[in-house]
Amino acid sequence: MKIINSVSELRNEIKSLKASKGGLKDVKTGLVPTMGALHGGHLSLIEKCRSENEIVVVSVFVNPTQFGPNEDYDKYPRTLEADSKLCEKAGVDFVFAPSPRDIYDEYYFTHKETTLICPPYDVVNKLCGKSRPGHFDGVCTIVGKLFNITKCDRAYFGKKDAQQLFIIKKMVKELNFDIEIIGCPIVREKDGLAMSSRNTYLSNDARKLALNISRGLYKAKELAQKGVKEADTLIDTALAYMGGLDVEYTEIVSVDTFEKIDIIEQGPCKALMLVAARVESNGSKVRLIDNIDL
Amino acid sequence: MKIINSVSELRNEIKSLKASKGGLKDVKTGLVPTMGALHGGHLSLIEKCRSENEIVVVSVFVNPTQFGPNEDYDKYPRTLEADSKLCEKAGVDFVFAPSPRDIYDEYYFTHKETTLICPPYDVVNKLCGKSRPGHFDGVCTIVGKLFNITKCDRAYFGKKDAQQLFIIKKMVKELNFDIEIIGCPIVREKDGLAMSSRNTYLSNDARKLALNISRGLYKAKELAQKGVKEADTLIDTALAYMGGLDVEYTEIVSVDTFEKIDIIEQGPCKALMLVAARVESNGSKVRLIDNIDL
Repeated sequence: MKIINSVSELRNEIKSLKASKGGLKDVKTGLVPTMGALHGGHLSLIEKCRSENEIVVVSVFVNPTQFGPNEDYDKYPRTLEADSKLCEKAGVDFVFAPSPRDIYDEYYFTHKETTLICPPYDVVNKLCGKSRPGHFDGVCTIVGKLFNITKCDRAYFGKKDAQQLFIIKKMVKELNFDIEIIGCPIVREKDGLAMSSRNTYLSNDARKLALNISRGLYKAKELAQKGVKEADTLIDTALAYMGGLDVEYTEIVSVDTFEKIDIIEQGPCKALMLVAARVESNGSKVRLIDNIDL
Repeated sequence: MKIINSVSELRNEIKSLKASKGGLKDVKTGLVPTMGALHGGHLSLIEKCRSENEIVVVSVFVNPTQFGPNEDYDKYPRTLEADSKLCEKAGVDFVFAPSPRDIYDEYYFTHKETTLICPPYDVVNKLCGKSRPGHFDGVCTIVGKLFNITKCDRAYFGKKDAQQLFIIKKMVKELNFDIEIIGCPIVREKDGLAMSSRNTYLSNDARKLALNISRGLYKAKELAQKGVKEADTLIDTALAYMGGLDVEYTEIVSVDTFEKIDIIEQGPCKALMLVAARVESNGSKVRLIDNIDL
């Protein structure tokens, strides 16, 4: 496994490895884009990627353009050494760990601007995008850049970031990237808490409170499975569990369109309940997200 | 030569031709993106592309996302039959002539929105971009899509659309497209008028007036070569020729940054004088652009 910082070096290494694996034609490259601080969720993506592709690239980059001015860009956990060990164990070929200056052009640092990939306003101006203006422009931009850098055939994303997954699939379709996007199931701690790099921010007490997010979601799912179809009832049920939390949104949307659902339809269930909530921990608020297929 | 409408068919055809030309490795694909109504300027791009690449794709697509609501999208000349003949003669392999529905996803037609590639505000909010809000988002989006569809190695653009060329080079760098952008010299009619598909809109009288654009530019260049360095003087000289025209802008910028220049520096000249002007023709205004290396 090689740890690489520079775009051109990564390109050359992928090219060489492709050639050595028998030509450029049928050797597939899989990409797992991450911000590092790898946990079981990331590892499940890497394992799936490893099982489906000849070449596996994991990017580790805390991307400044997807953080708002008052968000946790500076304090976001950076654990490249531990991440690299996990990647090595998982059989990764290349860990791509660039600095911001390896990734963004000089103009970005002098002008605070760069060419962006911007998803449609209607899909961005809700849920996470509503409280994080510009976030999904930053996400699509870095992901598009990584697609162009690695020329990957497949890319793997966790379903925890459900809106992100939806938007990236949309971007791929709308900009004609010839890349298959694979969404992988949420990985949870034994007690149900969805794994997240931001869980490291949580004190013991905050972690207990955070658990109420998944509890609420599971309770709503239980009710939906019993036949309750009104979104409001299901949402109220989930919210009843989240007393100690500062809930930013709880919504039920269609997996296909990400538009709000009032009544859950019968048949194969395509409704997703999504939550974003902030938990007080060590004097600051930690923002967590989670969701469940109803 | 094949004329192709569908994205997937074009992809397959390029793949097959690549394979038949000896594998995927050293066979280069060149793209000439056009809106059709091909003239000598386009042909010079196609010829250069043909001389440098094993596979030549010319796209002919009047792209709705780069036209403003009051612009000439509907009446823009569409001459696919004639264009195809010119391409055939020039040795083109594929003319890609999709309809808007071949190119844009259903969501665009229902929601009037799509994922866009947006160049930085500072480079867009001047010159042509100032009077055509959203124009360069549309240009970058369609060009990015064509890059992803064709997986081209090189793409050819005319220097007449100087700001467009600058912005596309910037996009390629900032989004890490692994594509070489080649800018080709302006091709002019014998009397100096820069070739443009929009010249077909011009009545005889309007064409005479339009000629004053290139006359003004040449006069300014003459003066610059005599040692005049003040941008204002050079601009006034050019403007003196453009009496009958509705001049939108006349500016001198650096070729490297597209920022305004007040005093032209000595040494290898990197200053560009740019003009956009509207000419009255048959009761409507025709917008023309031109520029010259001072």
